[in-house]
Amino acid sequence: MGKQKIGFIGVGIMGSHMAGHLIDTGYAVTAFDINAAALDTVAAKGATRAESSAEAAAGADVVITMVPDSPHVEAAALGAGGIIEVAREGMVYIDMSTIAPATSIRVAEELGKLGVRCLDAPVSGGEAGAMKATLSIMVGGPADLFEEMLPLLKVMGKTVTHCGEAGAGQTVKACNQIQVALNLVGMAESFVLGAKAGVDPQIILRVLSGGYAQTRVMDVRGPKVVKGEFEPGFKSRFHYKDLGIIMETAKNLKVSLPASALATQLFSSLLANGCGDLDHSAVIKAIEMLSNVQTAG
Amino acid sequence: MGKQKIGFIGVGIMGSHMAGHLIDTGYAVTAFDINAAALDTVAAKGATRAESSAEAAAGADVVITMVPDSPHVEAAALGAGGIIEVAREGMVYIDMSTIAPATSIRVAEELGKLGVRCLDAPVSGGEAGAMKATLSIMVGGPADLFEEMLPLLKVMGKTVTHCGEAGAGQTVKACNQIQVALNLVGMAESFVLGAKAGVDPQIILRVLSGGYAQTRVMDVRGPKVVKGEFEPGFKSRFHYKDLGIIMETAKNLKVSLPASALATQLFSSLLANGCGDLDHSAVIKAIEMLSNVQTAG
Repeated sequence: MGKQKIGFIGVGIMGSHMAGHLIDTGYAVTAFDINAAALDTVAAKGATRAESSAEAAAGADVVITMVPDSPHVEAAALGAGGIIEVAREGMVYIDMSTIAPATSIRVAEELGKLGVRCLDAPVSGGEAGAMKATLSIMVGGPADLFEEMLPLLKVMGKTVTHCGEAGAGQTVKACNQIQVALNLVGMAESFVLGAKAGVDPQIILRVLSGGYAQTRVMDVRGPKVVKGEFEPGFKSRFHYKDLGIIMETAKNLKVSLPASALATQLFSSLLANGCGDLDHSAVIKAIEMLSNVQTAG
Repeated sequence: MGKQKIGFIGVGIMGSHMAGHLIDTGYAVTAFDINAAALDTVAAKGATRAESSAEAAAGADVVITMVPDSPHVEAAALGAGGIIEVAREGMVYIDMSTIAPATSIRVAEELGKLGVRCLDAPVSGGEAGAMKATLSIMVGGPADLFEEMLPLLKVMGKTVTHCGEAGAGQTVKACNQIQVALNLVGMAESFVLGAKAGVDPQIILRVLSGGYAQTRVMDVRGPKVVKGEFEPGFKSRFHYKDLGIIMETAKNLKVSLPASALATQLFSSLLANGCGDLDHSAVIKAIEMLSNVQTAG
């Protein structure tokens, strides 16, 4: 069996690297993006251009979406000019965007009626992970389809985990974003308390990193935070979007997540203060504003 | 110069191991504890018994306290029958309890007037760290005194860090406890959301531990939490006490710590529900109660 033909919808910062790895591995990729410049980039890497999601999907064995949020997935999958217009028995659809689990489940049901088998497969690892193909990929959907798609997913990621049925990949991604948000908020409140007490944040960083308080976000971003450096990384406004998904999911499932709700409001404050394009570790700025103190320097 | 004579006040779960290491290393230790049984334990290890804090301190070059909270330190250091009654020029006082930074500063000032040089040196690492002498020790006070006491502190701990002037050790310990509390709350909300969505918590644990969401508390306690095992470790009621210190310090310094405040209330709920003697990772029970869901099993 030859390599599957791929339709790739959404070739922005993440998608362009991911599609590039598929092309480099010998997959034939037809790409679509609403942004012509993004499409130029992957065309230069060897992708065939399409004029719509439907056109990208028309001749494909496997259709992949990598778009910003739930409405974009719904549009690309089920909307006018979307995958649904060319859906057929045997087609596979993998959504790698981070969206609401409920949307993943609904899209899988709708396309499933037309014989399309679906996986939700959100990623973590950011642009660096996409570029180096070291993404962590969290997959929901039928176990046999997961096994069948594993070689393809391994082209884009390093750790690929089957999390359960449709929507389970999105659920685990949501859990991941809760933990990362609260690790960052914990680092923020630690540094701010220490700064106001006159303790060198470098010392706080060193002691906490070396003990039971250690987190990977502190290992990676702590040294930048104590110098006031917030170039992304992962932008605050994307984490705010993810927290919106988390709170929507919590509402649907009747789960009470008070700390995630608070984190959502702290990230909301970041956006209100023009910090949405900074790295999400900039949540310390919300605590600094509340406390009228500067940590870095 | 021979080894310093040590007065050790407070030989409970932590202090008995710490005093034991000093005795094993050849220090002469005179110990006091309000609990006679605790005193029996260290006497059996070779400590001389004292009938009061003042008696333990009377012939000592270095007096160490390891007691539950700020009022106990104030009583042992400044109260009737306390160190202050035998304080003299050249004596060194090291408080290794976890207490309010403001209390450490005040005790150092009061004893300082009588020529006693003071360090605050709270520890992290729990009973296991005390037993294996692998504690992390966070030290506030004069740099030259820190250097002078380093060999003695190294008998009880592995990582000994000078954090700044008087109170700075307590401040860094407070920062540590903020970060650990929020890492635990993040794990709790992740697992509860996942459980309600029907995802196996073992999968959430595996994916989060292997990526950017990783925390040491998840590495150590996550495998127990997903099985519903909460034997301490570090008891919830001690972390609640530490959060009380944190919020008191935040009030004194005019710092706003909304997530630490929320964590304090979640730990308060644990105590209200009879879970104070469980490991602090049991904070997941507060989120489970709020959400009417069981994670483990």
